[in-house]
Amino acid sequence: MSNEQQPPKRPNPRVLSGFRDFLPAQMRVRQQVTGMLRDIFERFGYEPLDTPTLEAIEVLQGKIGQDEKLLYRFTDHGGREVGMRYDLTIPLARVVAMHANDLVLPFKRYHMGPVWRADRPQRGRFREFWQCDADVVGTKSVIADAEGVAIYNAVLAGCGFTDYAIRVNHRAVLAALAPYAGLPDTDAVTLIRAIDKLDKIGPEGVKGEMMERGIPERAAERVLELVGFTGANDAVLAQMNGLLADIPAAQAGLDDLARLFDYAAALGVPEGKALVFPALARGLDYYTGPVFETYVPEGGVGSLGGGGRYDQLIGALGGRDLPATGISVGLERLLVVMEERGMAGATESVTQALVAILPNDDPRHALALATELRAGGIRAEVTLDPKRNLMQQFTYAERKGIPYVLIAGSDERAANTATVRTLATRAQQQIPRADLAATLHRLLNG
Amino acid sequence: MSNEQQPPKRPNPRVLSGFRDFLPAQMRVRQQVTGMLRDIFERFGYEPLDTPTLEAIEVLQGKIGQDEKLLYRFTDHGGREVGMRYDLTIPLARVVAMHANDLVLPFKRYHMGPVWRADRPQRGRFREFWQCDADVVGTKSVIADAEGVAIYNAVLAGCGFTDYAIRVNHRAVLAALAPYAGLPDTDAVTLIRAIDKLDKIGPEGVKGEMMERGIPERAAERVLELVGFTGANDAVLAQMNGLLADIPAAQAGLDDLARLFDYAAALGVPEGKALVFPALARGLDYYTGPVFETYVPEGGVGSLGGGGRYDQLIGALGGRDLPATGISVGLERLLVVMEERGMAGATESVTQALVAILPNDDPRHALALATELRAGGIRAEVTLDPKRNLMQQFTYAERKGIPYVLIAGSDERAANTATVRTLATRAQQQIPRADLAATLHRLLNG
Repeated sequence: MSNEQQPPKRPNPRVLSGFRDFLPAQMRVRQQVTGMLRDIFERFGYEPLDTPTLEAIEVLQGKIGQDEKLLYRFTDHGGREVGMRYDLTIPLARVVAMHANDLVLPFKRYHMGPVWRADRPQRGRFREFWQCDADVVGTKSVIADAEGVAIYNAVLAGCGFTDYAIRVNHRAVLAALAPYAGLPDTDAVTLIRAIDKLDKIGPEGVKGEMMERGIPERAAERVLELVGFTGANDAVLAQMNGLLADIPAAQAGLDDLARLFDYAAALGVPEGKALVFPALARGLDYYTGPVFETYVPEGGVGSLGGGGRYDQLIGALGGRDLPATGISVGLERLLVVMEERGMAGATESVTQALVAILPNDDPRHALALATELRAGGIRAEVTLDPKRNLMQQFTYAERKGIPYVLIAGSDERAANTATVRTLATRAQQQIPRADLAATLHRLLNG
Repeated sequence: MSNEQQPPKRPNPRVLSGFRDFLPAQMRVRQQVTGMLRDIFERFGYEPLDTPTLEAIEVLQGKIGQDEKLLYRFTDHGGREVGMRYDLTIPLARVVAMHANDLVLPFKRYHMGPVWRADRPQRGRFREFWQCDADVVGTKSVIADAEGVAIYNAVLAGCGFTDYAIRVNHRAVLAALAPYAGLPDTDAVTLIRAIDKLDKIGPEGVKGEMMERGIPERAAERVLELVGFTGANDAVLAQMNGLLADIPAAQAGLDDLARLFDYAAALGVPEGKALVFPALARGLDYYTGPVFETYVPEGGVGSLGGGGRYDQLIGALGGRDLPATGISVGLERLLVVMEERGMAGATESVTQALVAILPNDDPRHALALATELRAGGIRAEVTLDPKRNLMQQFTYAERKGIPYVLIAGSDERAANTATVRTLATRAQQQIPRADLAATLHRLLNG
C-alpha cells in the first residue's frame, strides 16, 4: 500500500453482459422487420397493446414455473416488491382481467417489446430481448388457430425465406401417444420428450431413448409408427385417424387439424407450407389444442417461433377464464438469421441525399435545397461543418453510406438546377430543380 | 385471531402507480405520433439508436445531480449494481465514448423510448414515460442548432397546432444579465430564476422578486429592459446588441442567434414561428449556446419540449469531449394535449373491414375474401365465431369501431361480388369482387 493518492480510476464505459446497444445500422434492420411484423399483424386485424416494464410482484410470481429465478426483481422506493416484464402473456392475462368489462371479445392483440430474463448470456441469447406476439382471447374457433399459421407464413415469406414450413400438431395427438402405445399416462412426458428429438437423432435414436427410460420396445415402435408418417396432410391425417380410431379426444383433435389446414389454405398459405407434423412436441402444460412451430431447414436455422391454443392459461394467470390462441415470433433469432444469410436489406444510412455546402458559400442556399427535397419526401441532410471542402463532404457521405450528394453552386443556381453525384459511380448529372425529388426517388428505387 | 383458515386472498390484478397499460385506442395514437416524429427526424438525416433498459450503475451515478434519488437501482443476480435508464442523454454519451473510432462525426441520432424515474406520480407525470430526442454530436455549426428549431416547427405543425412558437435564447445572453446590470456573477442565478417567471407574474412581479432577493431596483430595471424587448427578431436583436455592446461574449451569442434565425427560415420555418425570447431561462449548468423551447399559448398548454447546445456535457458524462446540440419532444405531454384538444385522429380500430361469415356457411369463402382484401392493402378481419348471426356481427364491428362489414353469401358469390355495408349509415352496396379493395380504399380516404 502506498501513501500516494491515486487519481480516481475512471471506469471504462461499458454495456452490461447480456444487454446491447443498437447502433443505427442495426436499428434500421430491427425497424424494418418490426415494421413488417406490425403491418402483417394489423392486416389480420390484431390491435396494438403495450404494458409497463415493471409489474407488482404478485402479478408475476407463481406464474413462471422453475424459471422464476430468472425474474429481475427488486424493492422500489415505496417498499413495493416489483419485477421486470418476463414475457408478454402474463401482462395479457392481467389486461384481460382488469378490462373484462370494456374489452370487445374476441380480443385480438399484438404486442412487440422487450422482456428481461437474468439468464446466462450466450450466442443469440440475451438478458434483454424482444418478443413479438399476436394472440386472440375469447374464441375457440379453429379459424383463429389457422390465422396464426397464416401470419407465420406471411412473416417468413415477407422476410425472404422460401424453404420454410410451419409444422402443426395437436395436443390431443400428444396426449394419445401413451394410451395408443398401451402405456399409462405417467409415461406421456417420457414419450413426448423423446419424439421431440426425432429431427436430431432419427427414429432409431428416439427408440433407443424411450427404451433406456423403460418403455417396452413394442410400445416404442407403436409411438414411432404414429409420429413417423410423412406426406400430404390429408394422407397423414387419414393414416393417423385409422390408428387412433379408439381414442375420441384424438379424433376430435385430428378433425381440428383438418379444418385448420383447410382454413389456412383459404387464408393464402401455399400448398406444402403448413404441414402436419405429429412429432412436434410443445409444452403439454401450456397448450390445449393445435400447436405450431416454424421450421427453416436450410443452414441449421431451425425454429423462428411457435405457438398454439392455450385455453386454460389466461384464467390460470389471473385473467378471466377465456380460451386463447396465438403465436410468438422470435425477433432476435430472426434478425441473426437474416443477417447471417444476407437477407436484411436496410443497412444503409437513413439519409438518402447529402446537400453539400460549397466552402465560403452562404449555407442558406443548401438549407433551402434540403428543405425542398424533404418536402418532396427525400431524407436529406446538409453538411454541418461548412469548412469542409467538397472532397471531404463526398468522403463523409461515403463513410455514412449516403448514396447521393447534391451540389448547387452559383452556376447551378443561375440555371435553376442542381448537380446530382452518385457516389458509387462518381457520375454527375445536372437536373432541373423542380425535378430533383422525383429524380432521386427514381434513382433510389432503381 | 381466529383458528379458521382463511382462503388465500387472490390479489386484484393491478398496475403499479405511475405506470400505464396502453390499450389499442391509446396505442394507435402513440404509434401515429411516434411514427410522425420518426419520419421528421429521418427527413433531417437523424439515424435511429437504442440502448439497454439497464446500465451498470457507474454509467449513471454522479451524472444526474440532485434527482439521482429518483433512479431505479438494484443489485442483479450476479451482484452487480444496476440502474434503469433515467434519460437518453447519458446513454448517448456512453455510446459516443464506446464507439469513438467507428462513429462518423457529426453523429446525428434520434432515440425514442421509455425512461424511468421514481417520481411522485401526478397528472401528466409518470414513473415510466417516453422521451423522444434528436441530437447532433461533433459539430459547433449553428446550422445544427437551426435544425433543432426546424424539427420543432415540423413536429408542432405536423400535430396540427397553428398557434405555436419556438422561443429562442442564448446562454451568452443569460450570462450577460449580471454584468449588464452591474452585478457580480454570483447574482446570475437569482436573475435567471426571476426572469423565468416573466410569463406567469409579469414584469412588476419579476422586479419585485429580484428586489426581495436583494437586487437593487435600478439593476432589476436594467435586466427587465434587456429581456423585455418584443417584436421582429431583427429589431429585438439590434436593440439587445446596442445594450450589450461592451460584452463580447454576448455579442458573439447574438451573432449566433442572427444566423440561427436566417438558417431556420431557409429550413422552412415560417415567419413568426421562431422568436427571440431573451427571458427564456434554461439550465445554465447544462447549455452553452442557443437554447430553445416550444410554446403553445392556447389553453395553458405551455411547453412541449426544449433543447439547445451543450458543448461540455458529452465529455462530462463520460463521452469524448465533443460539442453537441439537440432537442427533446415531450411525448406524454404532447399526447395529453392532443387528446384534450381533439387533435388525435387515430382512435378507431386497426381493422378497416370485417368479413362476415353467414351462419352455416363454409367459412372458407369469407377467409378467401379476407385474403384478397389483405393482398389489396386492406386491414381485414373475419368473424371468429361463425355461430353469430349477421346482426351480432354488425354489433361486434360497431363496438370495435370497424367502419365496414363485407358480406359474400351464395348470391354475391354467384355474381362475383360482395356487399359492402357502411355501419355508420347502414347503407349497403354490391361491388364487383375485383374492385373491392380499391372501393374500400376510396371509402376510407373519403
